[in-house]
Amino acid sequence: MRAASLMAPRHVVVQDVPDPVLLDATDAIVEVVASCVCGSDLWPYRGIHDTAPGQRLGHEFVGHVLAVGDAVSTLHVGQFVIAPFSWSDGTCPACRDGVTIGCENGGFWGQSGSDGGQGQLVRVPFADGTLVGLADEPDPALVPALLTLSDVMPTGHHAAVCADVQPGSTVVVVGDGAVGLCGVLAAHRLGAERIIALSRHAPRQAVARAFGATDIIAERGRDAVRAVRDLTDGLGAPHVLECVGSQESLETAIHCARRGGSVGFVGVPHLDDPKPIADLFGRSVGLRGGGAWVRSYIPELLLDVLAGRLDPSPVFDLELPLEDAAEAYAAMDERRAIKVLLRP
Amino acid sequence: MRAASLMAPRHVVVQDVPDPVLLDATDAIVEVVASCVCGSDLWPYRGIHDTAPGQRLGHEFVGHVLAVGDAVSTLHVGQFVIAPFSWSDGTCPACRDGVTIGCENGGFWGQSGSDGGQGQLVRVPFADGTLVGLADEPDPALVPALLTLSDVMPTGHHAAVCADVQPGSTVVVVGDGAVGLCGVLAAHRLGAERIIALSRHAPRQAVARAFGATDIIAERGRDAVRAVRDLTDGLGAPHVLECVGSQESLETAIHCARRGGSVGFVGVPHLDDPKPIADLFGRSVGLRGGGAWVRSYIPELLLDVLAGRLDPSPVFDLELPLEDAAEAYAAMDERRAIKVLLRP
Repeated sequence: MRAASLMAPRHVVVQDVPDPVLLDATDAIVEVVASCVCGSDLWPYRGIHDTAPGQRLGHEFVGHVLAVGDAVSTLHVGQFVIAPFSWSDGTCPACRDGVTIGCENGGFWGQSGSDGGQGQLVRVPFADGTLVGLADEPDPALVPALLTLSDVMPTGHHAAVCADVQPGSTVVVVGDGAVGLCGVLAAHRLGAERIIALSRHAPRQAVARAFGATDIIAERGRDAVRAVRDLTDGLGAPHVLECVGSQESLETAIHCARRGGSVGFVGVPHLDDPKPIADLFGRSVGLRGGGAWVRSYIPELLLDVLAGRLDPSPVFDLELPLEDAAEAYAAMDERRAIKVLLRP
Repeated sequence: MRAASLMAPRHVVVQDVPDPVLLDATDAIVEVVASCVCGSDLWPYRGIHDTAPGQRLGHEFVGHVLAVGDAVSTLHVGQFVIAPFSWSDGTCPACRDGVTIGCENGGFWGQSGSDGGQGQLVRVPFADGTLVGLADEPDPALVPALLTLSDVMPTGHHAAVCADVQPGSTVVVVGDGAVGLCGVLAAHRLGAERIIALSRHAPRQAVARAFGATDIIAERGRDAVRAVRDLTDGLGAPHVLECVGSQESLETAIHCARRGGSVGFVGVPHLDDPKPIADLFGRSVGLRGGGAWVRSYIPELLLDVLAGRLDPSPVFDLELPLEDAAEAYAAMDERRAIKVLLRP
């Protein structure tokens, strides 16, 4: 099969690799219908995270079940499935708590020894615990929206849940990548009344508005905090979604929060200073987040996508064949695209 | 009047200072019945926090109202009052939210220009918003328990509330100072079923057990984490109270928490590394805390103290006259005492 691999920083190739086979009775093989490039894929791409040459890429995909192991009981060959960005056994204490990201037997696609989502086929461990199967073949037009359920939409939802967004809430969203935009949409879906999105890029501002943002702030850092406070009686917002992970964005998020408020953080933290903890302490602001509990959230979000009530697909502003994966990465790296969908 | 002052690191004197007078119509003057030394008083004592020579000391006191300004409406001369560790106007948005520690017009006793609690008299700004008055003069035997409502008991309660302790909870408490011990008591009061206290000092272990600890762990750091996990099916506890504020204690607290769990942190953070934020992210653990919302919590806790259902007074294991304040500090600094009560 063909699969995208990272040979060296900024050197993505699509090459022939061995077809995956069922290794365990709980495995499934999925034939990918669509995958995509994530902001977090840019960390290894940029050489910030070390990877072995030839490392497979991609952790978001939807497709059809091609084969199942003997122990797989909830899925059948030919079924359309959504893969969360990590696999999980569905039975360990963390999974039973819904914290599927913390599965004792979990792992991520693209890690050493596993397939990546940006390929034609993927071996899925713990298929029953991991994949969410649809009862019927979906309308092909829904594929982009369904693909967002692999990661970005549940991740935006996780940020909103961790920030305790409620009907009527005032919410700030820090970050205008696909996850931040999905955070806006998630807050809107949960009933937030006012959603202040931090974005300085016109195309992303447009998506944010379409997703429910009521206010756009183009400033960053301290200026953004000042602008948010100007919009919130000088107090800040009770609910803030941090969808970047940088030192500045986390500090911005905490200072945009009202005293006693909550920050939901889903941007993988890349920090060099512990100041945010002192800020949380000093402002009585709570912090909760981490990798999203994607597998737990998909069923609820899927109902809304299938019913036409939820459409995160505008986060994809470029679609390319898998063979052009290198261009997909370059487009995202250079911020020419918000998120690129790849078709094998 | 006589008041304790810090002349230089480790140099506490009790000296004559001017009697306070009513400066604002919202002021009251309180004649102190009892005050005490807090673990956080040791930071300036040890020279870790800069202070001006002669800085007043102490932020915990109970006493009688000696005088009130014209605008004070809820208190009368002679009334027994409890002072929270900070003053608050009771009317700003933060106060209305219950976040009295974040009062727009708030401040701390002992800061420049204000009296400290470790003296005979204290001028109290925003007396209506700050002081909690008792309807009747309390039994003198209750004074130590009432004094804990100035800080340590509501602070332990805040840690437990921020860690979302519920009836039936399993809880870990990191820190065996007066606040940590009050955290044990608070968790017990909120109905926790299992309370694992980290303590290596026999007298403190005894208080922890008396306050409701079901298990004592004498290890620290990674060994403590291992011991906690051994007691919790390898998972950690859903609720952890961090009552120290050091790098090691915060990391210990986060790793003692079960995935998806909550850490309530009330130890003022003194950190040099942002690793705890990555740990929170990686373990899906929430962090919430900061200075306790003491003024908001006192009424609820006071009912239990007056009814004899709540007695945090065993945190005081030494009582001295105010004139011996220097010895009180030395005893706490050298860990010869958990907490010292001072009588003017």
